[in-house]
Parts: sequence; structure tokens; C-alpha cells
Amino acid sequence: MRIIGVDPGTITTGYGIIEFENNELKYIASGTINIPATKDFGPRLQIIYDELCKVIKHHKPEEFSLETAFYGKNAQSALKIGYARGVSLLAAAHNGLFIREYSPREIKKAVVGKGASSKEQVQYMITGLLALKKRKMKFDESDALAAAVCHAFRITSFSNTKKCRNWKEFIDAHPDKIIDA
Amino acid sequence: MRIIGVDPGTITTGYGIIEFENNELKYIASGTINIPATKDFGPRLQIIYDELCKVIKHHKPEEFSLETAFYGKNAQSALKIGYARGVSLLAAAHNGLFIREYSPREIKKAVVGKGASSKEQVQYMITGLLALKKRKMKFDESDALAAAVCHAFRITSFSNTKKCRNWKEFIDAHPDKIIDA
Repeated sequence: MRIIGVDPGTITTGYGIIEFENNELKYIASGTINIPATKDFGPRLQIIYDELCKVIKHHKPEEFSLETAFYGKNAQSALKIGYARGVSLLAAAHNGLFIREYSPREIKKAVVGKGASSKEQVQYMITGLLALKKRKMKFDESDALAAAVCHAFRITSFSNTKKCRNWKEFIDAHPDKIIDA
Repeated sequence: MRIIGVDPGTITTGYGIIEFENNELKYIASGTINIPATKDFGPRLQIIYDELCKVIKHHKPEEFSLETAFYGKNAQSALKIGYARGVSLLAAAHNGLFIREYSPREIKKAVVGKGASSKEQVQYMITGLLALKKRKMKFDESDALAAAVCHAFRITSFSNTKKCRNWKEFIDAHPDKIIDA
């Protein structure tokens, strides 16, 4: 299964695509969408949405993973992150991707083994797990790949109880686990 | 000139379209987009974006006005409002509309005359200004119409100094007034 992880921001949005088959991770692509800070919010959000749609159409992932919730206290920062996350979720929905959100703690725990890891530790583990050549990588990019890897690992741990290849199958097999929001 | 005002929210998004010609306001259409709370955020944002695009394509406004900034202190609420505002701004940008944002205070001052007015006062004034028949109207709808009316009034007050029919003309005529963000 092909998964895209996204780390949305109004200045830089990171994305990372991996393939997960037979319990093996394979790196497909990753990068950052850099948004000129001089532009108004309308055109800036358009860049995030349009570029993400291009990446999705090109690499054809089936599932979309992103870091959930903002734990800071600044409402203005939360609003801006909301803009970027909103248009990223829209790009996923418009392309028919199954969306899954994970808390920063869950992602760090899945990738590094500890919920309180640093961004440097996440990047180090991602480089190893995906057998990437050492190169300068923005945290937005490694965090996006981490969201994708976390989703892959979570599918495995669930599918060990009942064999499911993706979230849709898991949900179909476990209707009792669905909680109405 | 035709203006759409929008009051974005993840449960209800209000919109209102007015025509402003020769210093006269004319009501065109208004309503609310109601989003089922049971759905995930992806499909909910898709409803807001798709419905707003439909309204824009049908009524063909040229300029887009919305209330800026969130003044509450709750970061989680700000994040959700950010989702709705983000996809609304994207709908405006994708349809080539000129976007203008006003603070809640500016909008209330323009419509009621006082920056500290209640939503009821705004609704009462909007009903009078647009010669609407008295009917039950959601605050999301009257607030959206208020954002549109505020934009119309602001164009007038600027265009009294140099004759401009819209923001684009005003900006072209007053390059000295542009401040880089």
C-alpha cells in the first residue's frame, strides 16, 4: 500500500510518500512545498493545495496520514496552521484518499520508540528506516515521512490481530471499533 | 460590483451576496452551508469548499469579504476555524476573486456604527440596509452579509478621495498605500 504523510504549514509544507508491502518499508519520494511569505493567504493556500494535488496525482498514494491537533497555546498560530491543514485535508478528500490523523506523541513513539523524542531523533530514525542516503533534509520533510511510517506501523499492529491490508478493510472487519465523533 | 461575504465555520458556514452600484446596496442571495457533524474533517471541508464554489459560479461575485482573525484564546477552536477559513479562502482564490479581510470590530462599526455591537444589532441593521423581509435568519448568514456590506462601504469611503470602482482600481491608483506583510 502507498501512503503519503504530510506536515502542513503556511510557510513550508512537507510531504513524504512510502510504499508498505509485506511488512517492508520503501521510500518513494519526499520534499517540501515552499510558500512565498510575501503573498496573501488566498494565493498561499492555493500553492499548498495545488502542489499537494500534483504530488498525489503523480505518485498515486491510497492513504493520507498527518499529525493531528496543535498543542501550543497561541490561537493565532493555531489559526494559521488550521489554514494549511484545512487545504491539505481538502486535497486528500478531493483525491479520494483515506485520511488518518496521529498525535505528535504517537508518531514519535512509532518511529523512535519514545513519545518525547526530538525532531533530530525522528529524522535520524527515518533516514535509517527508509535506508536514505545522508543528506540535508528539512524537519518538515522528515516529519511528513514519519507520519507516513507511523501509519504503516499502526496498520501492521492492528492487522496482526485480524489480517487487514489497509484501514478500510480494518474498519469493515471491526465495525464495533467505530466511534461517532 | 458584486461582493460575496462569508462567515466560515466547520458546522455552519454563512454566505451573502450583494450588488453595490452607484452607492446603492442590493440584496442578491444568502444562505448557510450546513455540515453534518458526524463526518470526518476531510469530507466536511470538501462540503464547504464545493458548496462555496457552486455559489460563486452561480452568482459570479468579483470580490470576496470575510471577517479576519480569531480573537478567542482557545487554540483548538482557532485550529477548527482555521480549517473552514482556509478552504473558504481557497475557493475564493481558485475562482480568481479579490480577497479582503476585516476585523469583527470594523464590520460592526461599518454596519451598526459601533464596534461593540451584538449579533442581533448587526442582523437588525442588515435587514434594514438590504430591505429584507423579516424572517428567521441564522447569525452565520447575517454576519456574512455584514462582511459584504462592510466591504462595499469601505470601497465608497476610499473612492470618495479618488474615484475607484473596486479594490483593484484603488490599489492601482494608490501604490503608496500598499504595505508588505
